[in-house]
Amino acid sequence: MSLSDTVRGIVAVDEVARAQAVEHQLALAKPPHALGRLEELGVQLAAIAGQCPPPMPDPARIVVVAGDHGVVDQEVTRWPPALSGVLAGTVVDGVAGVSVLARSAGVQVVALDAGLAAPVPSVPEAVIRRGTADFTQGPAMTRDEATAAVELGIAQAELAYDEGVRCLATGEVGIGNTTTAAALIAAFTGAEAAAVAGRGADSPPEMVARKVDVIARALALHAPDPADPIGVLAAVGGVEQAVLTGLVLGAARLRLPVLLDGVTGVAAGLAAVALCPAASGYLIAAHAGAEPGIGVGLSALELTPVIDLGLALGEGTGAALAVPILRASVAVMTEMATLASLLG
Amino acid sequence: MSLSDTVRGIVAVDEVARAQAVEHQLALAKPPHALGRLEELGVQLAAIAGQCPPPMPDPARIVVVAGDHGVVDQEVTRWPPALSGVLAGTVVDGVAGVSVLARSAGVQVVALDAGLAAPVPSVPEAVIRRGTADFTQGPAMTRDEATAAVELGIAQAELAYDEGVRCLATGEVGIGNTTTAAALIAAFTGAEAAAVAGRGADSPPEMVARKVDVIARALALHAPDPADPIGVLAAVGGVEQAVLTGLVLGAARLRLPVLLDGVTGVAAGLAAVALCPAASGYLIAAHAGAEPGIGVGLSALELTPVIDLGLALGEGTGAALAVPILRASVAVMTEMATLASLLG
Repeated sequence: MSLSDTVRGIVAVDEVARAQAVEHQLALAKPPHALGRLEELGVQLAAIAGQCPPPMPDPARIVVVAGDHGVVDQEVTRWPPALSGVLAGTVVDGVAGVSVLARSAGVQVVALDAGLAAPVPSVPEAVIRRGTADFTQGPAMTRDEATAAVELGIAQAELAYDEGVRCLATGEVGIGNTTTAAALIAAFTGAEAAAVAGRGADSPPEMVARKVDVIARALALHAPDPADPIGVLAAVGGVEQAVLTGLVLGAARLRLPVLLDGVTGVAAGLAAVALCPAASGYLIAAHAGAEPGIGVGLSALELTPVIDLGLALGEGTGAALAVPILRASVAVMTEMATLASLLG
Repeated sequence: MSLSDTVRGIVAVDEVARAQAVEHQLALAKPPHALGRLEELGVQLAAIAGQCPPPMPDPARIVVVAGDHGVVDQEVTRWPPALSGVLAGTVVDGVAGVSVLARSAGVQVVALDAGLAAPVPSVPEAVIRRGTADFTQGPAMTRDEATAAVELGIAQAELAYDEGVRCLATGEVGIGNTTTAAALIAAFTGAEAAAVAGRGADSPPEMVARKVDVIARALALHAPDPADPIGVLAAVGGVEQAVLTGLVLGAARLRLPVLLDGVTGVAAGLAAVALCPAASGYLIAAHAGAEPGIGVGLSALELTPVIDLGLALGEGTGAALAVPILRASVAVMTEMATLASLLG
């Protein structure tokens, strides 16, 4: 489905089901609110599905989008760009961090080369462009490429839905993509570059300082307008973030919960909500993570992360760990005794 | 095994395996420490098992100990004492919060009546005494009862081990037991009553104030000596906390990880470490929880909780949610690619 049709097709989450879910939680065999955040998640899942109790978020699928970033020319990472493709291969081979954690949690993982600089034989291709341009010199990609990337993500959500998937999650591999994600978060939230740039994959302090400068220069060069989200994605985005923006929108249109993982997931969530504010109710922040941009973005999205384990690997690792907690929140609503049955 | 033999049989966790595990984490295909707390948990599990990578913590079992508390005469809870037995029955029936969450996570639950005021037909009995005495008037139980309760917990750990269990967790039901647990935490840590008394099962503010007074009076009456842990348990303990103290010690003697859930689990952890400091390395704090005594006790034990979902239900609910994260920490160590294989 096209971006414009998808945005038109998104309806806000169901407030009737939400209210029913709030009541339902109060009727269960526990003091009010005693299951804390687990109750809130169950209530949100009911609002998303439009039914109380909500269905299990299974199968869940993490869509790992791989891309390369021209901004690595600015030395914002200590890892070789060729590692993006190697990491995408490990996801396919089932030995990446996200592969291991997803398998442990009973979650599906698919990998997609949407923008690697060079193809990797084992990784399925749906290439928007082979690596973005250095956004300190000009736009990272064209508006048409950004739109095509978003529509690729929408198609991935639709494919997943057709294959029975009932919960989606963002995942990514791409050397340089924490710089890109931080630039997007700054553009969408108005935060300073210094507030969103982090250590990424173990960058030393002088490299983080360079990231701040790179992001600040890019924002000055492009003056991205958050009211024009495609323009923002084209100016300072990466292919991963653009595809995942579409994944988020597609999930919302299909009324599926979507877990945002890491800074790239948060950047995609901000872009999706900028394109369609009604999508916001479908978003769940998987984890707090080590990158400062996550907190800045989640604050703007008014989301509270499910877990906080100090993860800084990306890939979708936090989303894999959050899925069992979503399942638990549904199980409580469907299987727990009521207070009336106990005291009656 | 007796308490004294168990304490003698506990050896500190294996620092060689810990060091191997730290090295192993650095060799995996990720930036150093990028899996944050997950890496620390994997390292601890290696130290506990004395092998790197560590074995899966499966099957895991939550031992839900039920008891009643004489201190409810002081109006420290708004729930009827008879609810303890009813809740224990829901655990056996599989419809308690802990039952649902444990099933969702693939974790075993056993319930045991060690001190309910009255028997419940469906709940297995191993009764130390039928309800404790009101500890504002005298000791909650005798020293012999406290010792017998600890040894019952040790036997539960041994039974679990013989049945193949490789991870244990504390669970409880008992109206009034947040007051008891808070009193124990104050006694073992030296904290003020006001720092450990919480809302328990939804107590209103005036009831929390009464809990503070009750705990302060009990501490003044008994002047419990943390160097005499059995004396502390007898003075202001509950049967649950005493049995779970034994569960923790038994787990440590058998070199199994043991998840502490809620204030009662934390109180049991403090008592166990007071009885045998070498047990400390086997303890894992399941969750942060809403009760202030949890933070006070975990700080004294130098433990960081795995999850923080604002839970205030007790029963072992947080432990059930933490087990998938322990499994994930082991899966990373056994299944993830190495950095050398990627860059080689």
